[in-house]
Amino acid sequence: MTLTRFSVPPLSTVTRHLAGVAHGRIAPDLVIRDARILSTYSERIIPNREIWVAQGRIAAVKPADSWRGEGAALYDAAGGILAPGLVDSHVHIESSLITACAYAEAALLNGVTTIFCDSHEIGNVLDRDGVEWMLEDARAAPLNIFLTVPSTVPATAPEFETAGGDLTPEKIGAIFDAWPEAAALGEKMDFVHVVMGDARSHAIIAEALKRGRPVSGHCYGREFVAAYAASGVTDTHEAIDREIANDFLEAGLWVFLRGGPPTTPWHSLPQAIKAVTELGASAKRVCICTDDREADDLAMFGLDWVAREAVRAGVSRETAWSMGSLHGATRYGMDGEFGALGHSRRADIVLLNDALEPQSTWYGGVLAVDQRRITPALEAQLESERYVYPKRAYETVTVPDGLVLTPALPSEPVTVNTVKTELPGIVLIHEQVAIDPADGDWPAQFDKHGLCFAAVVERHGKSAGNVGLGLLKDFGLNNGAVASSVGHDAHNIIVAGRTEADMQVALAAVRESQGGIVVVKDGVVVARVDLPIAGLLSDKRVSVVAEEAAAMKAAWAELGCTLPFMGFNLVPLAVIPEIRLTDKGLVTVPGMEVLSLFEPMRSGANA
Amino acid sequence: MTLTRFSVPPLSTVTRHLAGVAHGRIAPDLVIRDARILSTYSERIIPNREIWVAQGRIAAVKPADSWRGEGAALYDAAGGILAPGLVDSHVHIESSLITACAYAEAALLNGVTTIFCDSHEIGNVLDRDGVEWMLEDARAAPLNIFLTVPSTVPATAPEFETAGGDLTPEKIGAIFDAWPEAAALGEKMDFVHVVMGDARSHAIIAEALKRGRPVSGHCYGREFVAAYAASGVTDTHEAIDREIANDFLEAGLWVFLRGGPPTTPWHSLPQAIKAVTELGASAKRVCICTDDREADDLAMFGLDWVAREAVRAGVSRETAWSMGSLHGATRYGMDGEFGALGHSRRADIVLLNDALEPQSTWYGGVLAVDQRRITPALEAQLESERYVYPKRAYETVTVPDGLVLTPALPSEPVTVNTVKTELPGIVLIHEQVAIDPADGDWPAQFDKHGLCFAAVVERHGKSAGNVGLGLLKDFGLNNGAVASSVGHDAHNIIVAGRTEADMQVALAAVRESQGGIVVVKDGVVVARVDLPIAGLLSDKRVSVVAEEAAAMKAAWAELGCTLPFMGFNLVPLAVIPEIRLTDKGLVTVPGMEVLSLFEPMRSGANA
Repeated sequence: MTLTRFSVPPLSTVTRHLAGVAHGRIAPDLVIRDARILSTYSERIIPNREIWVAQGRIAAVKPADSWRGEGAALYDAAGGILAPGLVDSHVHIESSLITACAYAEAALLNGVTTIFCDSHEIGNVLDRDGVEWMLEDARAAPLNIFLTVPSTVPATAPEFETAGGDLTPEKIGAIFDAWPEAAALGEKMDFVHVVMGDARSHAIIAEALKRGRPVSGHCYGREFVAAYAASGVTDTHEAIDREIANDFLEAGLWVFLRGGPPTTPWHSLPQAIKAVTELGASAKRVCICTDDREADDLAMFGLDWVAREAVRAGVSRETAWSMGSLHGATRYGMDGEFGALGHSRRADIVLLNDALEPQSTWYGGVLAVDQRRITPALEAQLESERYVYPKRAYETVTVPDGLVLTPALPSEPVTVNTVKTELPGIVLIHEQVAIDPADGDWPAQFDKHGLCFAAVVERHGKSAGNVGLGLLKDFGLNNGAVASSVGHDAHNIIVAGRTEADMQVALAAVRESQGGIVVVKDGVVVARVDLPIAGLLSDKRVSVVAEEAAAMKAAWAELGCTLPFMGFNLVPLAVIPEIRLTDKGLVTVPGMEVLSLFEPMRSGANA
Repeated sequence: MTLTRFSVPPLSTVTRHLAGVAHGRIAPDLVIRDARILSTYSERIIPNREIWVAQGRIAAVKPADSWRGEGAALYDAAGGILAPGLVDSHVHIESSLITACAYAEAALLNGVTTIFCDSHEIGNVLDRDGVEWMLEDARAAPLNIFLTVPSTVPATAPEFETAGGDLTPEKIGAIFDAWPEAAALGEKMDFVHVVMGDARSHAIIAEALKRGRPVSGHCYGREFVAAYAASGVTDTHEAIDREIANDFLEAGLWVFLRGGPPTTPWHSLPQAIKAVTELGASAKRVCICTDDREADDLAMFGLDWVAREAVRAGVSRETAWSMGSLHGATRYGMDGEFGALGHSRRADIVLLNDALEPQSTWYGGVLAVDQRRITPALEAQLESERYVYPKRAYETVTVPDGLVLTPALPSEPVTVNTVKTELPGIVLIHEQVAIDPADGDWPAQFDKHGLCFAAVVERHGKSAGNVGLGLLKDFGLNNGAVASSVGHDAHNIIVAGRTEADMQVALAAVRESQGGIVVVKDGVVVARVDLPIAGLLSDKRVSVVAEEAAAMKAAWAELGCTLPFMGFNLVPLAVIPEIRLTDKGLVTVPGMEVLSLFEPMRSGANA
């Protein structure tokens, strides 16, 4: 027996049966007894209830001890709180380095039963095919996974980077028409283009709007909110403070509060939620989301944790859980299927303790997690029934032999356009450093200025071997090299190192595994996470990848790197200021100029 | 220039323009200045704002005095409250006895800019054609009118009454596929059938569900809620008290609070809203509606009045207006188009005073009502551009000559199965009356028992002239006759009178005008509302029909009738207990037995 979204029959085929169960003529399949109900409709916790499940759906919520018949399986909730499974309103599965099938395991353990996934990364590598394969993966997963169609592929233009994908308005329209899971247009990341009326950006938005599909957003800066909202965008997960969250709400955008590990810059929920807790806005158009979550953070910082963060920030448990379930379902027009414990809805149910920690999860009426452990039913699905990506998905790293990853270092005085990294790792600083090799050889200059090599290697087979060369400043790497085939958004291979030799070892390792993250020390690979699917995803279970990722991070830190992997892989992302390194070289943002690494010494540079 | 829903271009075609306006590159068409904003998103009133309108849409809501450019028309709101136009979540236009185009005038005066209309009555007369013609009417109206597809036509079965329409599951599916305005399945009135698993009822529900369309409901009785909700129904406007409203909410139904003139039984809002005000349920899944409104009540008791009733019942102005706009839009998945003052939404805007009384209404950015008077732009649409129903819609009363409308009165002692009317006029009592003509002639018996004649005449041309004969008890009619071609739900002609002669005059008048409501006194028609379209609708403007209806009601009352017209026309409605009169005779509900009018005298009858 498979356990997927399709295990529950369409409601249209089972209404008579459900009516019969709810009215008492037919026995339910399952009765979950002795529970309190967290109602996301009324935002109350209601004591003394039981849930009757039939055909994978909720036939009825009844007063406790209503079921006195025979033929139903019984589960004793022992006075716990039954709540709807969580709905993650915005996720990129690829950020977890795992497949959709693998992601489902972590999700169900966190009480998450539905996610809206923007497969932006795989789209950047494999175009429409990658999006489709991930959708097939999603269909085989024990999780409701809907697609928000990647809207901004490539992130920039061919003169600034070489991407694998090019999702044109025509392709996006075709995706909407082909796949019922295409619930919305994914975050339209080029918000400045949108605001300025860029033709392609608006043509892509139009493909969604003319089909009645909502458009998800991504926008920073209060000055852009008005025109971005006027463009038909109706949600955002990038509200970073109280004021902009309030602006978004009033302009008509659903606000998805993003929670992330508190050590990361992604944890904007505590600030943004103040639009509700301090400015008094209704929470009815507020949702929560995770956006990006590394594999080893999924267990600790899932959407359930985000909901609890909302409670800590001052909203009630009932409202927090509603933001995490019904509100997202409503935003996407699917509240007839999930997001609440309404009759006829999917039996996607979580048993919570009073701290809102998920204990057990029913997915489509099937117990998938029981007292924090996955059940044999889920185990069988995860082991035997998961999707296998086609061979071509495993062949996405095309790198010729003999590439040179470090620049020839001038012997004359020069000004270097360095990429200065600093925490939190999003904005990269364009810092010009004046170097006169007469004052000390290059290794000494590297130490003095905190420099290391960086290279971005085109891997989509679209060039003869483009390599963009640069120097990172203050990255802290004191030995060896690191490399990753995750390199937003074009996902070329980014390598940083102290020596050409170590960088070549790292690159070779990534090439050999057709994608991955590699840490090299003293010429030897000391940690790796193989990501053979599109160079983005492991094909292993989440617990395995979490261990690999944790080991990789430990090795990474041991090299002295100041930016974590999640920041390092943004170095090529040529849509965030001030300077990025792509396979085309150094690109300034928003000026969009391609700079030389070395310039003749100028006055004013920082010696 | 026409002023219809289609005057505003689709959002997908104007996002670049709107972005340009919102960002300040292009002048708006209109700036509404010096206003407060009632935000239905955040449920707050925000001071010092102005709205920029372009292409019939809201380009931006800006701080006051932001617009300093040229080229925009200006409107001074003088510190009033700008709010989204109201959304009536459930209406039967036919109850107002006017066309959709005529209804729009009343709606805009009340600040209503969108309605969800269940054209159940015209469907009962003219089947799919009637629904389609009313939809064409709706498309020509200056109002957003969406269809909730009539789901329960006929209301019963051919053995109990003769209806004009028979909307099968197949026809309903075809309607969904043909017309984009078909937003939902209309109220599934046969809730007992649904609960009991009736095959046709569930097949009809399935047609909506399999297309992802919501199903509207109609349900009385807490014992039916669980199974009705399990059947996939997701709203109701029949919550008559706090407890059932609460039950509906928790079972997953949106609750539409119905407000009606306080003298009618339809005004259930003050009781049902206590689920919010007393039981503490969130109002986010609560809407308001009018359901049925007679033409002469439209001005005084519109949806704006219902919103004010909600305020009087204890919710805030902001919440009340949200229930009247955004919540309904959200329920039908159209909150990207209307229901709030969000950027890119239709400029369907109302200017309110502090008592929430609409002063001015913009429909798609066009000023349609200015300081409580309709503007020339609206007048032109209503006079010149309104829809004309086809000839066949004017030919729906087919009644042969020579019908007899009163029974032969026995000379032996009999038991009479009378239909006892009593306020509020919904339930009709089955009262058996023992009559021995030896104790006094029939006229004396009529006076003693408060009886009058009633007849229901089949008018769809489907029989050789079916007439159901009965006696009403306590109807109060002391002279003349009344007749109506509005006779729920089959809309055969119901006639009541003291004499055959007066009843024949009334029937002839209805036949002559091909539909209408007639009051006859002393053999003369003293008041009439002609309803030549489907025997249900006038083709006149709302103000004219309101006057005619008021005059009719005055004459009606003068005859002594205890039930108002709106109750009288329910006498044939064979889905409400205990006894009804149809063209097939006396029908008991829910027993669904056809009874004889006279039975041999039995013991136990009330002499």
